Amino acid sequence: MNQATCSFDPIAVDGEARAGALTTRRGVIETPVFMPVGTAGTVKGIRFEELESEELDARIILGNTYHLWLRPGIETIKAAGGLHKFIGWNRAMLTDSGGFQVWSLGALRKITEAGTEFRSHIDGSLRFLSPEVSMEVQTALGAEIAMAFDECAPGEATPEDARRSIELTLRWAKRSKDAHVAQLLNLRPDDESQTDSLRYRQALFGIIQGAGHLDLRRESLERTLEIGFDGYAIGGLSVGEEKHVMMDVIEDIAPRMPVEAPRYLMGVGTPEDLVEAVARGVDMFDCVLPTRNGRNGQAFTSRGKLNIKNARYALDQSPLDESCNCSVCRRHTRAFIRHLYQSGEMLASILLTHHNLAFFLDTMKRVRQAIRSGQFAKFRREFTEQLHCGLE
Amino acid sequence: MNQATCSFDPIAVDGEARAGALTTRRGVIETPVFMPVGTAGTVKGIRFEELESEELDARIILGNTYHLWLRPGIETIKAAGGLHKFIGWNRAMLTDSGGFQVWSLGALRKITEAGTEFRSHIDGSLRFLSPEVSMEVQTALGAEIAMAFDECAPGEATPEDARRSIELTLRWAKRSKDAHVAQLLNLRPDDESQTDSLRYRQALFGIIQGAGHLDLRRESLERTLEIGFDGYAIGGLSVGEEKHVMMDVIEDIAPRMPVEAPRYLMGVGTPEDLVEAVARGVDMFDCVLPTRNGRNGQAFTSRGKLNIKNARYALDQSPLDESCNCSVCRRHTRAFIRHLYQSGEMLASILLTHHNLAFFLDTMKRVRQAIRSGQFAKFRREFTEQLHCGLE
Repeated sequence: MNQATCSFDPIAVDGEARAGALTTRRGVIETPVFMPVGTAGTVKGIRFEELESEELDARIILGNTYHLWLRPGIETIKAAGGLHKFIGWNRAMLTDSGGFQVWSLGALRKITEAGTEFRSHIDGSLRFLSPEVSMEVQTALGAEIAMAFDECAPGEATPEDARRSIELTLRWAKRSKDAHVAQLLNLRPDDESQTDSLRYRQALFGIIQGAGHLDLRRESLERTLEIGFDGYAIGGLSVGEEKHVMMDVIEDIAPRMPVEAPRYLMGVGTPEDLVEAVARGVDMFDCVLPTRNGRNGQAFTSRGKLNIKNARYALDQSPLDESCNCSVCRRHTRAFIRHLYQSGEMLASILLTHHNLAFFLDTMKRVRQAIRSGQFAKFRREFTEQLHCGLE
Repeated sequence: MNQATCSFDPIAVDGEARAGALTTRRGVIETPVFMPVGTAGTVKGIRFEELESEELDARIILGNTYHLWLRPGIETIKAAGGLHKFIGWNRAMLTDSGGFQVWSLGALRKITEAGTEFRSHIDGSLRFLSPEVSMEVQTALGAEIAMAFDECAPGEATPEDARRSIELTLRWAKRSKDAHVAQLLNLRPDDESQTDSLRYRQALFGIIQGAGHLDLRRESLERTLEIGFDGYAIGGLSVGEEKHVMMDVIEDIAPRMPVEAPRYLMGVGTPEDLVEAVARGVDMFDCVLPTRNGRNGQAFTSRGKLNIKNARYALDQSPLDESCNCSVCRRHTRAFIRHLYQSGEMLASILLTHHNLAFFLDTMKRVRQAIRSGQFAKFRREFTEQLHCGLE
């Protein structure tokens, strides 16, 4: 079997922050990188042409195994020749395992050793997701990077609960790896939709759990490393714990993660979280904040969050963010975007989503430049100061 | 006072069909032209950058006086310096008078000689729209073309009802013209937002009514001509009458309209309607079909309408329209767009709206080319045949 073509090379280090290159069959991704979330085969409210534009230049997006598995279902995606072809996206993708989504269903799911049984949020049907099913689905989706099927503990989990969670996650990690290897061996060269996956082995990342308990986090890391993956993710953060707990975990764990593998912080966070996590050694991020909050009328700006619903913007002829050079800020005023939002116009979501993604992606670009030029500490200080000085 | 810079020059004639150039201070608009409808300051579901792209190249859009007057209100738009500046659109615009919208409110409005009293669909407040108010609002909006305030009769109106309607519309037309002149004279040169409107007099179009009664239509035309406008519109069609009645009216009236002024068919229609009306001498169109139907899952194609909800498209790897070269058809399959629609994803509306506008605008481009090369009869025949041969 081929090596995973998803390989990682650290390029520059500035303190714990590092700039690197993640090489996939669909191009080189400079890190630290933010991955827009494409839940159901679409990054909500934005066309791929915009994501590919020089302005946003998103090199990798995330697809949700849970959502795509339930709808349209794997047969539909297989018929198109995999997820890239189904949705028409030719750049890199990462799929999550579905573990977090089914865990989030709360009372609607039952977790056993075998896997998670749950009711579909779409039609109420009874479904079963396990490491083996997740690997089967993710192999069929054919993203460049797949994730091990894990179990998440709540942010405030006791040591006992967190222990149970990391043990289950470790057993599922081993089963995920075995099933992933088996899936790839099972690919048929005569199936055109599977050729690419055969030629370029899909990478598989392991996930570190342990809630806010550093000893469990370290153990989870060590034993996940023993199983061996192409990259490692920190899961189970931003799930209800206090902000300082999250940063403590990242600060303790990220530097212990292998230098030669990408470090991915799952589901985090605000622009400030991203910069702070980079300062602690993280390379990859995904988060729904820029898209979801955009649809809810919130803009992220260099001077903090802006709620476009606020009446103070009704006659405001300035852009969302004076410091932003995105196509929305170059063209439209807060007054206009507020009018669109108040009128229930789809364009409000479209414009806010675009600006927010531009701001997140541009921030990461500036982070990369700062690390490469050894100016990251200065960038981090100035970025944070500006965020906190408030909106004009 | 300056001449309206919105001037019209016929360029080529092929049968009754004609190609011309409508010159405004914001560029030359080749006719026949289709105007996307921008109800509340946005063409729903599409960014201005797309409308301006070479692919769509919409040269003029329509704004709705009724909607903008109610929300965000004229003071908000004045504060931005007019509608163009408020929404960030630098190309030409036409605003309707609000007459049709308030007429459409049915039981919620009361029409008197003075004007129309109605309840706002937004907050239920009692409002009053008249020729004078409409002219005041339209002058403040500052589009290149304003429309006279008219009254519409139902498609099946009796001769008596239609007579009452044209008489009222004629009195309102005179009041509209007088009020428009007065408004323009009242513009203050020291008000920056009004400078452009002063320098380039806003054009005002009159509207011909008369339901399906040709004698009343002809009289309405003659007496509207006597008042004198910069262009003339056929109103009161596509409001419940039979299709052949609409085409009979157009066929009778359009060729009697002045050669040297633009002829605008309001609120019509399907791609086939557009081609058939061009064949009868019409220059300008607006219609919500490409945007509204797009949001409802309907695509207009060269082989007829396609309902993306249909299960037959679940695994269909072909584009919406095999003959279409728009960015949606070049990239996405019916199966994917159906998945987006079924999942309630905004991108379904965005992609269908884009394709539909591309199809309408491209059809009009081909119409113009056909007229200029004396091939319009051939184009019309082939276009219609293809439309009726059905979807593959």
